[in-house]
Amino acid sequence: MGEEVSNKQIILKEYVKGFPKESDMILKTSTIKLKIPEDDCNDAVLVKNLYLSCDPYMRSRMSNIVGSYVDSFTPGSAITGYGVGRVVDSSNPNFKIGDLIWGITGWEEYSLIKSTQRLFKIHHTDGVPLSYYTGLLGMAGTTAYCGFYEVCSPKKGETVFISAASGAVGQLVGQFAKLLGCYVVGSAGTKEKVDLLKNKFGFDDAFNYKEEPDLNAALKRYFPDGIDVYFENVGGKMLEAVLLNMRVHGRIAVCGMISQYNLEQPEGVSNLFCLITKRIRMEGFLVFDYYHLYPKYLEMVLPLIKQGKISYVEDVAEGLESAPAALVGLFSGRNVGKQLVVVARD
Amino acid sequence: MGEEVSNKQIILKEYVKGFPKESDMILKTSTIKLKIPEDDCNDAVLVKNLYLSCDPYMRSRMSNIVGSYVDSFTPGSAITGYGVGRVVDSSNPNFKIGDLIWGITGWEEYSLIKSTQRLFKIHHTDGVPLSYYTGLLGMAGTTAYCGFYEVCSPKKGETVFISAASGAVGQLVGQFAKLLGCYVVGSAGTKEKVDLLKNKFGFDDAFNYKEEPDLNAALKRYFPDGIDVYFENVGGKMLEAVLLNMRVHGRIAVCGMISQYNLEQPEGVSNLFCLITKRIRMEGFLVFDYYHLYPKYLEMVLPLIKQGKISYVEDVAEGLESAPAALVGLFSGRNVGKQLVVVARD
Repeated sequence: MGEEVSNKQIILKEYVKGFPKESDMILKTSTIKLKIPEDDCNDAVLVKNLYLSCDPYMRSRMSNIVGSYVDSFTPGSAITGYGVGRVVDSSNPNFKIGDLIWGITGWEEYSLIKSTQRLFKIHHTDGVPLSYYTGLLGMAGTTAYCGFYEVCSPKKGETVFISAASGAVGQLVGQFAKLLGCYVVGSAGTKEKVDLLKNKFGFDDAFNYKEEPDLNAALKRYFPDGIDVYFENVGGKMLEAVLLNMRVHGRIAVCGMISQYNLEQPEGVSNLFCLITKRIRMEGFLVFDYYHLYPKYLEMVLPLIKQGKISYVEDVAEGLESAPAALVGLFSGRNVGKQLVVVARD
Repeated sequence: MGEEVSNKQIILKEYVKGFPKESDMILKTSTIKLKIPEDDCNDAVLVKNLYLSCDPYMRSRMSNIVGSYVDSFTPGSAITGYGVGRVVDSSNPNFKIGDLIWGITGWEEYSLIKSTQRLFKIHHTDGVPLSYYTGLLGMAGTTAYCGFYEVCSPKKGETVFISAASGAVGQLVGQFAKLLGCYVVGSAGTKEKVDLLKNKFGFDDAFNYKEEPDLNAALKRYFPDGIDVYFENVGGKMLEAVLLNMRVHGRIAVCGMISQYNLEQPEGVSNLFCLITKRIRMEGFLVFDYYHLYPKYLEMVLPLIKQGKISYVEDVAEGLESAPAALVGLFSGRNVGKQLVVVARD
């Protein structure tokens, strides 16, 4: 049968242009039956959402872009994104009531997920907060892992630069690079984040890009002999400055370009000729192509977390009501560390 | 002893801004002793220059750019570049008088080459014109070979687009791609070149980019399902249009950006975000890093030439006097096929 309960949801009102605002979303209360409907149920689970992840890639889903790599949100419906939940009903024997999962779910209290194909069962909860599966032990962590190890082809002793370095992905890439024996510098947008990079995440150095009138000069200061590996999260003028400072045979893993997402006309990068003179490999990637490595990643990272060799900073917003502000805050850099939303703790 | 002979030379007058002009160079007649001077001669050869190569990369050597991948020319001295010559004196036992060589030499009748490190001895002259060593069997050919096979990771059945496709490198890349079983389209700047691509080089199709007001639409017409491999010779607006039309997991080998070389401010490419959404690998390369593959390349290409499976078109300028016009012509697309200059035939 399944009782019918109230279900708060965050709805996208309409497609967004420019910077998203809190008012682009509204909180709506509907109801949901805590039972999978009989007519669509050979691979469905019904979950109670516990933690939701705010990720920069979600910006593109707020626009009506045809042919993008992810579907646009549907105006009038709940936003969807990565989250952690507990199964309250299931039509797939591999997912049992009570199981914890992470994957794409809805921005609402309860979600009916019609296919489990892109859900991951959570097996390890000892010694790691469950919320970590919105980031470090979920999509952002896997992104950092495959982006750094698979795309950057890093070697011990190389110089690594990471932009948006205190974000969910950047903070991990920097720590992976340090563990490998690289020289690591990150950029961020506040003094607080720069301090985090240096004091909490163990970066060799860090700078506030907003206080650098000349990014090229800043990079020359931190990398007098150039950059071997650039982990690209921001795009635009930073990429242009980095290209000038790359070393021969350098590698650029293009993970994101958050500085460009809200511009009607993205900035042009005019010095791509550097790719030739320095024989640079620049490669875009999406974590979707690398989820087969997730078990290998967990095997590496869980012991590191338990040994205290990986630090992780979360920016926790309490309550589904706070989700719109949390998401919007990503694009002004308001968050410090991984931004997530607690819907329920249990 | 060595007789002293007159030595015509092409001299760069001063560093060039914008489009180079013939008048940026002058013909000067000096003299040279046909004997290696005793004081610099443990690895020198003196060559009579037969054929000189005009290559787009030479444009950057005409500017005073610090820290480039190639040295700038020295104003007041002879231009240098790839060429084919015959040894008339040698202090290195591996290079004997009468040997034919290709490599970096001077734009003059006779050149004293102080190190043989970057010279290649020519062993095969049967059935192939000696001039081919300025291109097909020299730098341009090796560039096409390593750029296509090593950088593009091409697979049978893939779609390949080549810009500046009738040039020395492009015409070969297209033929290599056809031999592999790819669908190949090229762009060029005149009807004559487009006809060459289709009728002589066996491209599946070709278009005149100057007659396409919308490059994006043109590429969509020729590649309705997108481009797997782009061999980049031009940069700027063409690259921007190509990025829109790349397929997921596409590869871009960045060989040159001839549309940008004479601009004071290169065009910006504003849609690099496509690298992420389509997981594109974009890689710059220089042939210098691949010369170890030259013997392997010759082994592949010589039989193909002799079997008539590779066509090759040269644009031959007669006499050292014609060299400045030939070089300048590259940047307006005046040449049809590989541009070279005959200094002497024997």
